[in-house]
Amino acid sequence: MATFAMQALGCEVTAINTVQFSNHTAYKQVKGRKTPAEEVTELYEGLKQSHLDDFDVMLSGYCPSAAVVQEVGKIARESRFKATTKPGSFFWVLDPVMGDNGKIYVNEDVVPAYKALLKDADLILPNQFEAELLSEVKITDYASLATAIETLHRKYRVPHVLITSVTLPPTTTSTPQNQSRASSPFVNSANALQSGKLSIVGSTATSDLKPRLFRLTVPALPVFFSGTGDMFAALMVARLRESCQAADLLTTNHWQSPDDVEATELPLAKAAEKVLASMHAVLVKTMNARSEELKRLDDEAKHELNVGIGEEAGQDKSLQRHLRLTKAAEVRVVRNWRDLVEPQDLNDFRAQVVAVDQ
Amino acid sequence: MATFAMQALGCEVTAINTVQFSNHTAYKQVKGRKTPAEEVTELYEGLKQSHLDDFDVMLSGYCPSAAVVQEVGKIARESRFKATTKPGSFFWVLDPVMGDNGKIYVNEDVVPAYKALLKDADLILPNQFEAELLSEVKITDYASLATAIETLHRKYRVPHVLITSVTLPPTTTSTPQNQSRASSPFVNSANALQSGKLSIVGSTATSDLKPRLFRLTVPALPVFFSGTGDMFAALMVARLRESCQAADLLTTNHWQSPDDVEATELPLAKAAEKVLASMHAVLVKTMNARSEELKRLDDEAKHELNVGIGEEAGQDKSLQRHLRLTKAAEVRVVRNWRDLVEPQDLNDFRAQVVAVDQ
Repeated sequence: MATFAMQALGCEVTAINTVQFSNHTAYKQVKGRKTPAEEVTELYEGLKQSHLDDFDVMLSGYCPSAAVVQEVGKIARESRFKATTKPGSFFWVLDPVMGDNGKIYVNEDVVPAYKALLKDADLILPNQFEAELLSEVKITDYASLATAIETLHRKYRVPHVLITSVTLPPTTTSTPQNQSRASSPFVNSANALQSGKLSIVGSTATSDLKPRLFRLTVPALPVFFSGTGDMFAALMVARLRESCQAADLLTTNHWQSPDDVEATELPLAKAAEKVLASMHAVLVKTMNARSEELKRLDDEAKHELNVGIGEEAGQDKSLQRHLRLTKAAEVRVVRNWRDLVEPQDLNDFRAQVVAVDQ
Repeated sequence: MATFAMQALGCEVTAINTVQFSNHTAYKQVKGRKTPAEEVTELYEGLKQSHLDDFDVMLSGYCPSAAVVQEVGKIARESRFKATTKPGSFFWVLDPVMGDNGKIYVNEDVVPAYKALLKDADLILPNQFEAELLSEVKITDYASLATAIETLHRKYRVPHVLITSVTLPPTTTSTPQNQSRASSPFVNSANALQSGKLSIVGSTATSDLKPRLFRLTVPALPVFFSGTGDMFAALMVARLRESCQAADLLTTNHWQSPDDVEATELPLAKAAEKVLASMHAVLVKTMNARSEELKRLDDEAKHELNVGIGEEAGQDKSLQRHLRLTKAAEVRVVRNWRDLVEPQDLNDFRAQVVAVDQ
């Protein structure tokens, strides 16, 4: 997913696979192998000896162990060190994959391993739960979310933060900056949170490490898709570099916007708008295809009921149904690459100011 | 290379990596790991248990051992067996990677392993040397090339054969079918063979296993590119399916054209035309980029000579030069995916009849 999404947007990708699995884990059964930390190191050594380690951007995602997290961190630090004399020539997008919805699905020692690396990252992409793990701030409303982001800026010196899968109820602390914005999409979105919307909340720190908070809201589709985290991260890599290039920031440290740039005008916000528009288009198409498969499944079940077969194997049937629906929900990214390259309906995905009274 | 090329043309790809290397072997130094045969099997078992093994087409390329070749063969045979009641619903493109220019670069036991699998393949893509190994016919002219292809059709029952990297001198046995074609591109190409042209010679067997020979000729670029075999194979997968679909052959056994279809009108020939046009466009752009790097290298060397540095480390310098030029020759396929999707100048790559007096 990540490799293709970056390639579709023109990036030449050097991929180090941290697993080779037969399928993603939402199938609930998987075969294959996790890459040991030593092999990650060996592959990087191989790249170095042939001078193939001159990355502009590094994206790191799921790591199967704390040891792999540490090896990935070494690659990032070494790349950062080589870039010392050329500000902005290396940029690390760190997706600290640890869990979601209050549940960790990696070893506990992965959490401190990521914390130790945060100071070397340029952009981190935790979901709401991962942001809590990293910042040690419980996120219950927009005020605590802002505190979490400020902690990541100040304590860990992470210049860019994007928190995905934010599902907070609208609160009084989340209000438009002034009343003239009362009829803006921001208010609509705040209300819409109650009715199945997902938000992404981001910030690029100012020079004195203050957050500049923005939010983007998308309809929450009623289907679980696997790989959307990797898709988001990969598209952000390409789009952020593009928007930072447009803002002439690629030769500045951490591609950090001047202090007078407002939250919703940040390249980080502009990039996220395009990414969400692309993703929404692809995911809606995937959902529609899955709905057709669901209808076929239901028709088949009705038919079997009518002719009186298949009643005995209830558990197997439920597994078969799960497998077919999971397959039908495979994100249709390859056949819809045009949606990646040229996102439509950008106006539906504009960044909005998040004003928090702290 | 293969995965991206297929994805660019809209194929959803399930990839089983038979190696995870830091780089391709033309760098002359590489780190990483070959996938053991048991892991290939395990990944396939994983796909099967979740019903993710419903491939329309399988492409197999480099296998690091005879054991892996055999495992790949098992996957193909099992897929073929499942397709028994649905003719044309599974198609295996076998690229029997063994060596080139008279030199084997796999273990000797890989050769008989491939021979044992040929009867299950729909299309094979050997280069001239590999075609000799498989057919046991020494290819010295177009007559012996035709004999090799006929052997592959008759003895091994391979319906489609495409032999790549054919570098035969023009001979009297290779003449246009009739004099009215004397001024056609065919004659030009035959003459041009003397001046650095490469040919692809292919055939789809008739129902009585006679070859229908065609040839496509492209200018031989004076640079070694790594991955072009995989690129050719991957693009052929997508383009052959497309041209066979246009000819309404996808529900026939082996997508085999009726006997009245002439060699140059075969879907195999039509597909190869598009593939060569795409590849030539991408490779010319790659070559031009490499030429610029070569000029930079030479300028640097001249400068160093002038200021009198770097004379001591001759061997290291030659390695560094090799590494930089190899990197500069990395096929620029991602940034030029439009050339894959919409090949231009198709008229420069038309298939021509090969008439052999046997």
